[in-house]
Amino acid sequence: MADAERKLNNGKSRIDFQADPSKYRHWKLTVGGDVATLLMDVDEKGTLFEGYELKLNSYDLGVDIELADAIERLRFEHPQVKVILLRSGKPRVFCAGANIRMLAGASHAHKVNFCKFTNETRNGIEDASEASGLFTICVINGTAAGGGYELALAADHIMLIDDGSSTVSLPELPLLAVLPGTGGLTRVTDKRKVRRDRADVFCTTEEGIKGKRAVDWRLVDEVVPASKLEEAVAKRAREFAAKSQRPAAAKGIALKPLTRERSADGVEYGTVSVELRAAALASEASGQRGQSQVRAPDTREDGSSARAALASEASGQRGHSKSARAGHSPEPGSSARARLATITLRGPQAPPPASAEAMVEQGAEFWPLKLARELDDAILDIRANEFDVAAIVFKSSGDPAQVLAYDQFLEANKEHWLAREIRGFWKRVLKRVDLTSRSLVALVEPGSCFAGTLAELVFASDRSYMLIGKRDGDNKPPATLALATVNFGAYPMSNGLSRLASRFLADPTDLDRAKAAAGETLDAEAAERLGLVTFALDDIDWEDEIRVFLEERASFSADGLTGLEANLRFGGPETMESKIFARLTAWQNWIFQRPNAVGEEGALKRYGTGQKPAFDTRRV
Amino acid sequence: MADAERKLNNGKSRIDFQADPSKYRHWKLTVGGDVATLLMDVDEKGTLFEGYELKLNSYDLGVDIELADAIERLRFEHPQVKVILLRSGKPRVFCAGANIRMLAGASHAHKVNFCKFTNETRNGIEDASEASGLFTICVINGTAAGGGYELALAADHIMLIDDGSSTVSLPELPLLAVLPGTGGLTRVTDKRKVRRDRADVFCTTEEGIKGKRAVDWRLVDEVVPASKLEEAVAKRAREFAAKSQRPAAAKGIALKPLTRERSADGVEYGTVSVELRAAALASEASGQRGQSQVRAPDTREDGSSARAALASEASGQRGHSKSARAGHSPEPGSSARARLATITLRGPQAPPPASAEAMVEQGAEFWPLKLARELDDAILDIRANEFDVAAIVFKSSGDPAQVLAYDQFLEANKEHWLAREIRGFWKRVLKRVDLTSRSLVALVEPGSCFAGTLAELVFASDRSYMLIGKRDGDNKPPATLALATVNFGAYPMSNGLSRLASRFLADPTDLDRAKAAAGETLDAEAAERLGLVTFALDDIDWEDEIRVFLEERASFSADGLTGLEANLRFGGPETMESKIFARLTAWQNWIFQRPNAVGEEGALKRYGTGQKPAFDTRRV
Repeated sequence: MADAERKLNNGKSRIDFQADPSKYRHWKLTVGGDVATLLMDVDEKGTLFEGYELKLNSYDLGVDIELADAIERLRFEHPQVKVILLRSGKPRVFCAGANIRMLAGASHAHKVNFCKFTNETRNGIEDASEASGLFTICVINGTAAGGGYELALAADHIMLIDDGSSTVSLPELPLLAVLPGTGGLTRVTDKRKVRRDRADVFCTTEEGIKGKRAVDWRLVDEVVPASKLEEAVAKRAREFAAKSQRPAAAKGIALKPLTRERSADGVEYGTVSVELRAAALASEASGQRGQSQVRAPDTREDGSSARAALASEASGQRGHSKSARAGHSPEPGSSARARLATITLRGPQAPPPASAEAMVEQGAEFWPLKLARELDDAILDIRANEFDVAAIVFKSSGDPAQVLAYDQFLEANKEHWLAREIRGFWKRVLKRVDLTSRSLVALVEPGSCFAGTLAELVFASDRSYMLIGKRDGDNKPPATLALATVNFGAYPMSNGLSRLASRFLADPTDLDRAKAAAGETLDAEAAERLGLVTFALDDIDWEDEIRVFLEERASFSADGLTGLEANLRFGGPETMESKIFARLTAWQNWIFQRPNAVGEEGALKRYGTGQKPAFDTRRV
Repeated sequence: MADAERKLNNGKSRIDFQADPSKYRHWKLTVGGDVATLLMDVDEKGTLFEGYELKLNSYDLGVDIELADAIERLRFEHPQVKVILLRSGKPRVFCAGANIRMLAGASHAHKVNFCKFTNETRNGIEDASEASGLFTICVINGTAAGGGYELALAADHIMLIDDGSSTVSLPELPLLAVLPGTGGLTRVTDKRKVRRDRADVFCTTEEGIKGKRAVDWRLVDEVVPASKLEEAVAKRAREFAAKSQRPAAAKGIALKPLTRERSADGVEYGTVSVELRAAALASEASGQRGQSQVRAPDTREDGSSARAALASEASGQRGHSKSARAGHSPEPGSSARARLATITLRGPQAPPPASAEAMVEQGAEFWPLKLARELDDAILDIRANEFDVAAIVFKSSGDPAQVLAYDQFLEANKEHWLAREIRGFWKRVLKRVDLTSRSLVALVEPGSCFAGTLAELVFASDRSYMLIGKRDGDNKPPATLALATVNFGAYPMSNGLSRLASRFLADPTDLDRAKAAAGETLDAEAAERLGLVTFALDDIDWEDEIRVFLEERASFSADGLTGLEANLRFGGPETMESKIFARLTAWQNWIFQRPNAVGEEGALKRYGTGQKPAFDTRRV
């Protein structure tokens, strides 16, 4: 399995998630009244990496970055648009799905990241419908295969041309020995509710299904003869537009390009800083770890019995005691390379505007929107370009009262389209954080502003530490935490619950107590009592505790942590969305390592070579 | 990664899932009134495979087979038992979890199968509580590490000795770079509802947690000083016994050893036959596949556009057209080895007994119980010993009216403890079928008896085929299907829904129509109209269709099918149980392939060697 990343096209050194409609290579976005047409017309040569061509509207991550951008722009720049017509600019083919040669040459990490982002984009299309009344009608004028059909599945309505040959299909399993990677299986069973045995037939029939059967089996909503297609599309567009509450007269705001300054050690945005540094200090620091760990809160007693038991079970030799593990750090090729990314979010410099109109005037400079866009970009950048980042540490600086003032402003204007879109954007960014496979840590320190919306990052973190009181010789105000209405439902996780409801699954009265404390300024001990932070520590313990914790975290297996966090972050219910990221994605990740798919004789590698794949038939 | 299976101990050639209490090597089961004590006292030398020792009450699959057996026996042989005290027979250690050396040397397939079975056993402990009022109290007298704590998590009540050193822990991630493999993460968050950040601390603290913090964090229900332990245990046992409705005066039935006759081609039980044969016929058969596939029901038209699109996208060369794929079969090392297991279930030879007492009298010979036990053993045997089996084909023979008569008998006696236990056993066996990673196919043919309970196997299958009318020159009665009350709730899947409710997620009126047809004898066309079978075929198509389908199925990637089926079988809601088998298991399977865990320098391999593992720090 090739695990080296391909070379990016056009001499770029990082994958960039920012896009500019005037430079789209793969999509044509046209807006006419309340209907927008999003035409997929992929430029074969416009690949993200070298070494393949994007024939037949097949796509790579670069194509999807433009799609995600277009959907966001329709929400913010064109609030009057009620319906998106998702169409192909190529004859007889809607979309051939993810490019196979790209997949065949991609590293495991890239495949996983690619699927995660395309999933988020499809979810974004559905979110635009549910949360914003921006409906999508997919018009399939030819072949919609694999990821092409999965894209269609994200739409509210699927129209298939009835020309005797156009089909929808999920041929991944029979052709490539992998699964549909963008939610296809889950949307087939849970969204379109295709009967499971029919889903089995569909997903193992490489030539796909067309015509009446496609409708009978619920795979598409209607089939239309070519001669009547435009008329039917226009009719459906009018029907969906009539159901939308999007504002007919509103004028959008421009999502101006982000300003970013990159250095060797990080990135500076307007309201966000990202700082990258090695996770482990020099080896003399490691020597202190064992001792320091013993001082960890309430684990001060030496709980050696479990270790002793396991150790002795394994013949009395413990290969990696803490000190041994700490000893990795200086070793090249092991966790020595692990890094930390500290993301500092800066609170607003000025009070909220006086009116919704003034907010529109500020546009992309309006603090909550600017911060959300920059945070989103920072997270995506780390995910795709910084594989050695073991943990993301969230910090903040600013005036919590001002953060709350913005939350109150958005709450007071929540019927305004732009306020609603900004809240919706925060919801999606926070979900992106939840799904980021890096350890997430919040450090709540003097001078920070984890209040309301920003407090969600504390609750999104795997762990949070809060400093008690002031630091010696530091005049910053003691750390506080403050809850607001937004913390109780505005930003559901993919499991459908707020982060606080997920946190307090055990006892709903804990959630009630938190609600009752909304608006209060909570110091570290109060926040810990309410269960809002993991540990409140005083200045004496802080430095060592955090250092030891972060070093230890970086010394654990990266894969083990990914699996651990993917489980612990999502207690309680599952939704279609969480099933896509859990059940389906996890199986796909598994298959993306199996020789039957990615081995030298596997189906992904041999596709199109004229050679048959050789399969290990053993069932696991 | 070693993928060769170790040698079984004691010269055995297959893993046997049958156990006999008089020969238990690892457990001591004693029954006193309404309380049973199940003492874990693992025989270090009594390993399933060669090459390791089961020190400190660590376990392998052999230990768990005895545990599963003991739980079943308590349900059937000791109906008066209301409380199980799950304890350790060793001083200062409850259980050190799955044996690490066993895991380090096991094949990927064995690790996955091992975790699946131990999960089913833990679920069985919980099912005994919920469905039968047989409660489990876990008494932890020392270290409960990893799988040891996961075993405790299956109990209704966890008591931890408060001796200053005994801890509970899930040290898998920090010590071994894998996840707790037996539901631990999900039970911590979803059953015990431990706050997610505390769960994070707990699962990354190898020494575990003890004392008051273990209670405060909800990891155990109580801590008790050694001096008061026995008194406290007796008190809890009385409390739980008081809540149980199990019958004080009932006399159990003996679960007599199954009679099995094994040949090179299969196994014969009393009511079940298993026949193993090659999935692919000789190569001249393969030549017919393309043509035959074109004749598949309603896919007769050549849906070549999707293929053409993908093919041309991959430079116009299609590596594995159907005929090319069929060509695998004769190739050694590829799907040539794939086999089919046909399981034929035989209906009852006699009408149901006249009374519940007569049922008790028949005991393990009572047809529904005998069949369920034999089917369970057949499924487990294929899972663990027949990795090359690509598909399990379910057939049946007998009188459907007699099958329904037994269902009616059990329904009429559903308050009787034994009837309830038998229904519960069927529920568990059918769940085991759902979770079996082989393609499941039901063939409903003349002379079959897929009625009531047996019809569940049709609905558990990925696809079902039913023959229309009689066969030429065959006097067997035409195939029928019949529904009964049991099909609408008695046998929920792990997602909490009946198989028919899962099947008809799209439209509840489909479920209503099926309910209205309960008791009717449905021929193939009626069954197809009601959506109960995938395809009804006439005699002319039958032979070719089935052959082509099964050959094609066997030619697909085994891993891809496992992932596909794990998704399509479980539409709709998720439960804690389904999350364990979906989210957690899939991530664990993924990690079980990653070099950080299983590579030569990985943590599983290096544990106990004195060498540190070397980790790839890249996050995926």
